[in-house]
Amino acid sequence: MDTTAAHRPTAPVVAALTRALGSEVVFTDPQLLDQTAQDRSSHRWEPALAVVRPRNTDEVAAAMRICAEHTVPVVPRGAGTGLEGGANTTAASVSVDLSTMDQIIEIAADDMYARVQAGVMKSALNTALAPHDLHFPVGPGVDASLGGMAATSASGTTAVSHGTLKENTIGLTAVLADGSVITTGSTTKKTSAGYDLTHLLVGSEGTLGIITEVTVTLHPVPAATMMGIWSLPSLGEAADLVVASMRSALRLGRVELLDEATVEALASYSGYRAPVADTLMVEFTGHGPDVAAQYAQFSALAQKFDAVEFASSGDPAESAVLWQARHDALPAALALVPGSAAIPTDVCVPISQLPQSIVQTQADVRASGLVAPIVGHVGDGNFHVAIVVPPQDDDAAARAEQLASRLVDRALAMGGTCTGEHGVGTGKVDALAKEHASALGAMRAIKSALDPQGIMNPSKVLSVQ
Amino acid sequence: MDTTAAHRPTAPVVAALTRALGSEVVFTDPQLLDQTAQDRSSHRWEPALAVVRPRNTDEVAAAMRICAEHTVPVVPRGAGTGLEGGANTTAASVSVDLSTMDQIIEIAADDMYARVQAGVMKSALNTALAPHDLHFPVGPGVDASLGGMAATSASGTTAVSHGTLKENTIGLTAVLADGSVITTGSTTKKTSAGYDLTHLLVGSEGTLGIITEVTVTLHPVPAATMMGIWSLPSLGEAADLVVASMRSALRLGRVELLDEATVEALASYSGYRAPVADTLMVEFTGHGPDVAAQYAQFSALAQKFDAVEFASSGDPAESAVLWQARHDALPAALALVPGSAAIPTDVCVPISQLPQSIVQTQADVRASGLVAPIVGHVGDGNFHVAIVVPPQDDDAAARAEQLASRLVDRALAMGGTCTGEHGVGTGKVDALAKEHASALGAMRAIKSALDPQGIMNPSKVLSVQ
Repeated sequence: MDTTAAHRPTAPVVAALTRALGSEVVFTDPQLLDQTAQDRSSHRWEPALAVVRPRNTDEVAAAMRICAEHTVPVVPRGAGTGLEGGANTTAASVSVDLSTMDQIIEIAADDMYARVQAGVMKSALNTALAPHDLHFPVGPGVDASLGGMAATSASGTTAVSHGTLKENTIGLTAVLADGSVITTGSTTKKTSAGYDLTHLLVGSEGTLGIITEVTVTLHPVPAATMMGIWSLPSLGEAADLVVASMRSALRLGRVELLDEATVEALASYSGYRAPVADTLMVEFTGHGPDVAAQYAQFSALAQKFDAVEFASSGDPAESAVLWQARHDALPAALALVPGSAAIPTDVCVPISQLPQSIVQTQADVRASGLVAPIVGHVGDGNFHVAIVVPPQDDDAAARAEQLASRLVDRALAMGGTCTGEHGVGTGKVDALAKEHASALGAMRAIKSALDPQGIMNPSKVLSVQ
Repeated sequence: MDTTAAHRPTAPVVAALTRALGSEVVFTDPQLLDQTAQDRSSHRWEPALAVVRPRNTDEVAAAMRICAEHTVPVVPRGAGTGLEGGANTTAASVSVDLSTMDQIIEIAADDMYARVQAGVMKSALNTALAPHDLHFPVGPGVDASLGGMAATSASGTTAVSHGTLKENTIGLTAVLADGSVITTGSTTKKTSAGYDLTHLLVGSEGTLGIITEVTVTLHPVPAATMMGIWSLPSLGEAADLVVASMRSALRLGRVELLDEATVEALASYSGYRAPVADTLMVEFTGHGPDVAAQYAQFSALAQKFDAVEFASSGDPAESAVLWQARHDALPAALALVPGSAAIPTDVCVPISQLPQSIVQTQADVRASGLVAPIVGHVGDGNFHVAIVVPPQDDDAAARAEQLASRLVDRALAMGGTCTGEHGVGTGKVDALAKEHASALGAMRAIKSALDPQGIMNPSKVLSVQ
């Protein structure tokens, strides 16, 4: 990628930003511009004109007003852990890096919500919540910022029981394209007061406004946890067991799939010792007796699908070790081919379609000749294919793109969605247009209404017309 | 109210509608125009020019296109059970009555969703779901249409465990102001694909589009239920017990408050025999042993707040009889003053504010000299005051309005919302503007973008500028 920032003359917008906010907030160091120019995807990026690192909403608003005056695009950035290029900058843009907005504003323990600045990391929030016996269990395996998670409507392993950032965000503070500041939602558990701007902004990936503060719901730390790892004869049976579990009155806390290829990769990556088989990891949380009863009921069901228990634990520390295998899935896949990159793509299908969707994907992966382990939050019908692309292999890269594209097409044909939790970014603009052809005009109308100059993270989510 | 429809000449829009859709869809009968001109509130209404009773989305779209050509306002209507005037018509408008769109399109039992036409009643959906051992437990005590519930972001007694129509609506079909048809959301459990138009339309009360089909999530019918009725020494202690229960790991299925005045009203209305005291009705649902354990845990907690159990039951039929008292609260209040009307208002506060909010409201009711029982979905911080207005008593009506207004002001001052579940309609337009002053401009921008002529249910939610 291009790193020509070093020798560019200072753009007028950068001069104005520096005058208004100072050099402790506005940065043009080329190395920093490169570092904040991309997320964890392989999508295209160029270094921005400047990086603004605001300390509060007012500074974001001031930066936004100046960029609007100069008609300069603004690209908001959280922790940079995105996977679809949503935070990637262009040469003409200004990056607003919210990682410096890391203050927890309020923990309302009785009302079970927390209000945080957008840059607060999930781990930091959970550390602060521990004394209250509360936690925020929603989010990806990787640590991420609350603002970034809200902007992409993120979720993770606990969505099956706790929902996504959609269900767990009750209010926002956001800076709009003209620099005005809005607060949305309520700190109440529900509201029917007017348009739900909170959920219009959640998942809008910075294209309608910059989320500067997030109010999220908190959950009691469960008194008891029981997790288990089960080997299945095939992906089809694993998916069938998931469907049956969801259809029962079982309250699954988590249910994760690791295909045989993932388990094999983990064996060489971390010495994970489970049988090389398609595997389900499940967890139940709640009170002691309830949790044991739920796990027993799941065990009985699992045996009907010829599942065999490899390990189980009611001890949180031991469980965390067992869960680590799930979080190692992506690095383990990458380690299969030294120096490789991955396309960590993501689709979601109605749960009844999960068996055939996963089985067809497995067949497609095999036919492609690529290494592409499958893991997923299968209780949601959501799964990932980490397509491994060897270094300097243009042919493999092209085949990987085609494989990812067929994955989306199959999901859409089954009534699924092109992304369950990664978002659209630049990577799935065409897929979104295909999925929501009828509603694209309404999305564009809203975009134009809130961002008439088209300067809010342009070319993300929707193509620039 | 005015019923001059009988002698009006046929408006050009009505002629065009009748030409396009036929007289079996377009009605101008004055009696019908009156019947479909209002919801259950006392807010202002006039009979519309015509009532369109479409059979499908295409007919709604055709009607909408014609009204747009004639720049005639359209007022969508569900079952007419609203409480803030959202479906009330004006003399220049056309009512689109979706009660004739009563087809259940799809029950996807494995995927646990149902797609229904907007006019399908909650009771009809539940009847159809029974053979699948699934139900749709969300909604008000009164039977209501799925489209109407989605349009107002309704909820009811089960919101504490199952959420509201927001959390339970995963997709919509809607007709926009230009007659175009959009589908939103997905039949998957989650999606990060683009702007969340589903949740922009849920709660928009027909001001951004006409919801013609709704896809809702379904829930397994619980294997076991345990409900109990508890008398408390005071409203403050009742509210404190609710806060403590929510803060614990108890999974409350429902938790409803009936104040002493409500219990007294019920005694004379239906012979309800509970002690005349501030009362909590609670319910736990799940599996047998789990439910009993949860109820036992609640009982132990309740005793710390000097609560006394009046009745309890694990039998569904017996429970239904006991729950009837809760559903009788509004008619029982009205029966206190023969011929009276009620202002059934609704606020929601953060749950920590519930004790003082309810206690202050009780004091305010007493000072007002009005009869106004308090009931509420207190696990959500949501409560209703049914202000009883005697017939032909303008002074009482004025005091009732002032009482309702102070209720909202107190809720807002505590970080609450002006409506937890009834919606804005015409009754809370000013309250909404107060609550969301900073976001009102963005709401108006979206309204203008999607409805440039201002013909979608004008003067509801937002005032016409």
